Amino acid sequence: MDVSDSNDNQEYQPPKVWQWESESGGRFASINRPVAGPTHEKALPVGEHPIQLYSLATPNGVKVTVMLEELLALGHEGAEYDAWLINIGEGDQFGSGFVEVNPNSKIPAMVDRSGPEPIRVFESGAILLYLAEKFGEFLPTEPGPRAETYSWLMWLMGSAPYLGGGFGHFYAYAPKKWKYPIDRYTMEAKRQLDVLNRNLADRKFLIGDDYTIADMATFPWYGALAQGKLYEAGEFLDVESYTHVRRWMADIEQRPAVRRGRKVNRTWGQEDKQVRERHSAADIPED
Amino acid sequence: MDVSDSNDNQEYQPPKVWQWESESGGRFASINRPVAGPTHEKALPVGEHPIQLYSLATPNGVKVTVMLEELLALGHEGAEYDAWLINIGEGDQFGSGFVEVNPNSKIPAMVDRSGPEPIRVFESGAILLYLAEKFGEFLPTEPGPRAETYSWLMWLMGSAPYLGGGFGHFYAYAPKKWKYPIDRYTMEAKRQLDVLNRNLADRKFLIGDDYTIADMATFPWYGALAQGKLYEAGEFLDVESYTHVRRWMADIEQRPAVRRGRKVNRTWGQEDKQVRERHSAADIPED
Repeated sequence: MDVSDSNDNQEYQPPKVWQWESESGGRFASINRPVAGPTHEKALPVGEHPIQLYSLATPNGVKVTVMLEELLALGHEGAEYDAWLINIGEGDQFGSGFVEVNPNSKIPAMVDRSGPEPIRVFESGAILLYLAEKFGEFLPTEPGPRAETYSWLMWLMGSAPYLGGGFGHFYAYAPKKWKYPIDRYTMEAKRQLDVLNRNLADRKFLIGDDYTIADMATFPWYGALAQGKLYEAGEFLDVESYTHVRRWMADIEQRPAVRRGRKVNRTWGQEDKQVRERHSAADIPED
Repeated sequence: MDVSDSNDNQEYQPPKVWQWESESGGRFASINRPVAGPTHEKALPVGEHPIQLYSLATPNGVKVTVMLEELLALGHEGAEYDAWLINIGEGDQFGSGFVEVNPNSKIPAMVDRSGPEPIRVFESGAILLYLAEKFGEFLPTEPGPRAETYSWLMWLMGSAPYLGGGFGHFYAYAPKKWKYPIDRYTMEAKRQLDVLNRNLADRKFLIGDDYTIADMATFPWYGALAQGKLYEAGEFLDVESYTHVRRWMADIEQRPAVRRGRKVNRTWGQEDKQVRERHSAADIPED
């Protein structure tokens, strides 16, 4: 193998006990820490709706705003929500109020205030499951299709860290380019695209004819990747070869709830498509 | 930051289109591919029990054998299972029969043959959810504790790839040691240990007093890590400082079902604790 990009005469020797050098880490370094817990006191705002969402329009955030918009599109008034912006670049996720809702300091996090006691839910996959059960939508009740939905949802939860934290980090965000990690994570990103592509060759959605929370979890990551819209890696990954993933993504993008949900808690891109906070349907402009 | 371990005068330039160099990749390189699908024809064996498990006693495999043993310990005869060995070092996960059950070619994968049609389930987290619902155990039915179980289960599913595929790979398995990825993933491993440690400071189990599938998913990764039993990284990570994680792990290890489940589909360690296949309770020796 070629390690000329990363080979010195002297190999790195890790210390016996690792120590934090807080200045290292490339882009997003300031938000990476080896300890958990809050860094500052800050209460979270609470609006008038049953569902309080604290998020940002990253792929993980979009999963949940799309789900809520899909539920509203079906007429579930109990899915009305306030979406508050958590600016992870400014450390909002380390505020004391946010850490109480998600001790892992990641978006999205949600509080359901519709019952006698507020219920917290963190991790996008958990929020999707929770909402799917609460409203009885997008998660089949028959054991076979339900198992298939669980399988693909969990597949995404275990795969996306290789895509975002692995491929995206080393290809786009790390302070320099290293061949070994780029090769490692490129191989996995392409393999996962191929897993999806084979599955979608003869299925409309991930589990078959039905659109489920597994699709909502997956399209913001692998759908966007297959369009060349993540990490400017379209040519590098030869995304045009994953034709079934691209067809599936094109179908999903047509859904009105998807178009709406992708705009919420957005702080980048076209200004008129940014909806930094969402408190009613009127806050989201039409295309 | 110090990049002397990985810095050359000339920075690596990724090609416009990535190409597979099949000889690269360190330990486990032979089982990493940029494409999905089977590499050879091989049917899976089927035993006499309702549940057919195809697995290996890695942390992800152990989650499921422990769950099945916990269900059997509660008297659920429907949880009787045949556990077949999938030797990932020999490419068993790329056999045609296995790929039909898990198109992602990862262990564990399961088929439930108790109903009119076999039901496949893949991904350890999906199998835990499926079994918890099927038998009505280890997943609370009240919305608050259920949401908390979902949150911690999904937290594990999204975190373990940083631990196994990130920290473990670069600290223990990669062909050489690079400072940047080791620092990156060490920081995250320690942060996650601290997330858990703070949660377990005043809770017996992850969601409180009840032992759930979230605990079963987490202990084979972070519990073992906190004992210094993964990647020989105990001193490096200063695992003794995570006292609450260690207390929780010690409690869980005492459970008879945990002691039994950890032995199944094992091909390493003490010979008398290896149970390569499990077809009845008698196949698992007592301690």
